[in-house]
Amino acid sequence: MRAKSFADMQCSIARSLEQVGPWWSLLIVRDALMGARRFGQFQRSLGIAKNTLSLRLADLVKDGILAKVPARDGSAHDEYELTEKGRDLAPVLLAIAQWGDRWTPHEDGPSFAIHDRATGAPILPILPRREDGQVIPSSAIELRRDRKEAQQ
Amino acid sequence: MRAKSFADMQCSIARSLEQVGPWWSLLIVRDALMGARRFGQFQRSLGIAKNTLSLRLADLVKDGILAKVPARDGSAHDEYELTEKGRDLAPVLLAIAQWGDRWTPHEDGPSFAIHDRATGAPILPILPRREDGQVIPSSAIELRRDRKEAQQ
Repeated sequence: MRAKSFADMQCSIARSLEQVGPWWSLLIVRDALMGARRFGQFQRSLGIAKNTLSLRLADLVKDGILAKVPARDGSAHDEYELTEKGRDLAPVLLAIAQWGDRWTPHEDGPSFAIHDRATGAPILPILPRREDGQVIPSSAIELRRDRKEAQQ
Repeated sequence: MRAKSFADMQCSIARSLEQVGPWWSLLIVRDALMGARRFGQFQRSLGIAKNTLSLRLADLVKDGILAKVPARDGSAHDEYELTEKGRDLAPVLLAIAQWGDRWTPHEDGPSFAIHDRATGAPILPILPRREDGQVIPSSAIELRRDRKEAQQ
């Protein structure tokens, strides 16, 4: 699918995609945020081939997004836990989910709810804001290349 | 890479990835947000094979993320413009960029700046908030499967 590594690009979007670009990776993180910890739980949720799941889990561990830990019940199964880096993908998943709910809605509605773990309160749409806290519509957002090279 | 289509899954993350999952797609949207409009501009920015770029552009047009429009200067070149659906991917790209800046930082710093087009003001990190507007740390976010089937 891709001819070169994105890992060394200066663009932080490209570098992020090097780690979470394979589609399954973000769905594994989604399931982990919903409480999945074991290989079999991910496999049942995703309906993915075992060897593909093994590869994706190993990459996520290598990149420090998941950590492999002993089973909490003392059994011989390995379990997978999100690291802080992995948990910090939550805003990415929220942004993707709300885009999908708006632009490719499913007839049965959203398949999961997003809550503040402490209070159970729902979470607002994740939106860009100016420094004064005001929401900026997507149409007003501009990306500008930071032309360090050109200034030298 | 994947064995089945995500398009029909109820999960809005999976359905979104069906449309923006190929890595190049989000980088094309990124470049469009930075002002790229022509095939050659995308190609120079991405260093991507022409046939791959053609396929990705065609998919983005088919999915209504880009629109193919006549060149603004009246020349024979086609140009590509983000639709409202395409512009609405800005929060996704912002969330991915800030994760990359935090967790896989580049020694030269971020490669682009994000601004409010109207005022030039920088845009805050895009963060989940409770209904009262308070920012929720990623560690406090919980996804819960909406068990419609189980309730029936």
